[in-house]
Amino acid sequence: MIKVTLVGRGNVSKHLIRAFSNTEEAGVIEILPSRSDALSEALNDTLNTAKGKGRILQPDIYIIAVSDDAISSVSKQFKNSNKLIVHTSGSVAMNVLPNSARSGVFYPLQTFSKDREVDFENIPLCVEAKNLEDLVLLKKLAKAISKSVYEISSEQRKSLHLAAVFVNNFTNHLYHIGNEICRKNKLPFDILKPLILETASKVNTLPPIEAQTGPAKRNDEETIEKQLDQLQNREQREVYQILTNSIKASYGKKL
Amino acid sequence: MIKVTLVGRGNVSKHLIRAFSNTEEAGVIEILPSRSDALSEALNDTLNTAKGKGRILQPDIYIIAVSDDAISSVSKQFKNSNKLIVHTSGSVAMNVLPNSARSGVFYPLQTFSKDREVDFENIPLCVEAKNLEDLVLLKKLAKAISKSVYEISSEQRKSLHLAAVFVNNFTNHLYHIGNEICRKNKLPFDILKPLILETASKVNTLPPIEAQTGPAKRNDEETIEKQLDQLQNREQREVYQILTNSIKASYGKKL
Repeated sequence: MIKVTLVGRGNVSKHLIRAFSNTEEAGVIEILPSRSDALSEALNDTLNTAKGKGRILQPDIYIIAVSDDAISSVSKQFKNSNKLIVHTSGSVAMNVLPNSARSGVFYPLQTFSKDREVDFENIPLCVEAKNLEDLVLLKKLAKAISKSVYEISSEQRKSLHLAAVFVNNFTNHLYHIGNEICRKNKLPFDILKPLILETASKVNTLPPIEAQTGPAKRNDEETIEKQLDQLQNREQREVYQILTNSIKASYGKKL
Repeated sequence: MIKVTLVGRGNVSKHLIRAFSNTEEAGVIEILPSRSDALSEALNDTLNTAKGKGRILQPDIYIIAVSDDAISSVSKQFKNSNKLIVHTSGSVAMNVLPNSARSGVFYPLQTFSKDREVDFENIPLCVEAKNLEDLVLLKKLAKAISKSVYEISSEQRKSLHLAAVFVNNFTNHLYHIGNEICRKNKLPFDILKPLILETASKVNTLPPIEAQTGPAKRNDEETIEKQLDQLQNREQREVYQILTNSIKASYGKKL
């Protein structure tokens, strides 16, 4: 069994704990706080207990599941450790971790909410490690909880995170605009939900460029002008205009 | 049984035929071509047969499932009919149909592809009719194939269609940009699919404004600048910038 100590009690940590509890191949042996003084104290306790009794379980991996900003400072507390230290962030490079030979990344590419259960088995796990032995260990850990494990470099991960901003953050904001338009016109947002789900499901069978429909794709200037007139909010008009231009550009049409 | 004659053989028509074939309460008795001369000929044939033998089935409703541009000209061929004539478009007003007392709209709010089966039962059907009796008939027809039937005015439908452009056309384009970023960085697009699906599923339980995450929501200028630098394509940078501004505006942050 791969023994894991988690640092942090945020959403990613909670979901990882649940995922590891469903496998025999890995187990969480300790959850440490991320606040600097509390973490320092906890690490000292563990050290003292280990020294005194010599039989406390030592983790194989420390997973630092804290906010991006905190990774650097939290990980400094492990700079003298000879264990593998990984973080879980999509946008932070591996070399932000202490410059030991044993660092890595264990990045689950998904959006986590506190109260929403996710099926970890289907979440892509992107792993990276400084040395090959640790990469093998991380892959084994990842495969214990997910069917989709990818070896991704820090550089690629940066791009992946950017792509995730488009398909998650920005997409969710478009849902918000859809919701606003409904609200202003006394329409229930529920009416859009099947369309939202089908649009997302479609990319499983069709590349998005082939699934594209609508006035921008058709270059239907009349509808585009009418729809721009319907939008009363400056930001929404800008979003409409820029995305319309971008769709046209992707089909090589004149702007 | 409500007898339906469909005009047009496009995606919407095909999906409607399949949906009506699964209910006892409605049935398609004829499918007419949408091309002007062929339709005219077909209508004459039906008329002549009806006159001659007096026992041909007459539809209760003509559903004109043709492209938006063609609705006006196709529907003119029915201007002397005393049957209910409806179109299936989200963006065309009811009054584009011949000025008879019996016109209406039967708009399924979904994205249809030729080869992709959809579960009609869960597709919202938006109905509108000039007179109350026809509205009752349309609702009955709609409820025969869908659990979600909404009475929606032409004005509301225009807004709904605009909202659909945001959550379908524009969202799909963001998927395309995600795909492009993956392609350029030798990453499989598959890796983003679970995130795409979860983002869409989340709005079932959480209003999008509450599900929002990411650098724009956090006002994380450092990440925003870095990600803008990563984008090599002008349109993609514009999309990133405008959507980031729009997210900030929706949280009332200074631009």
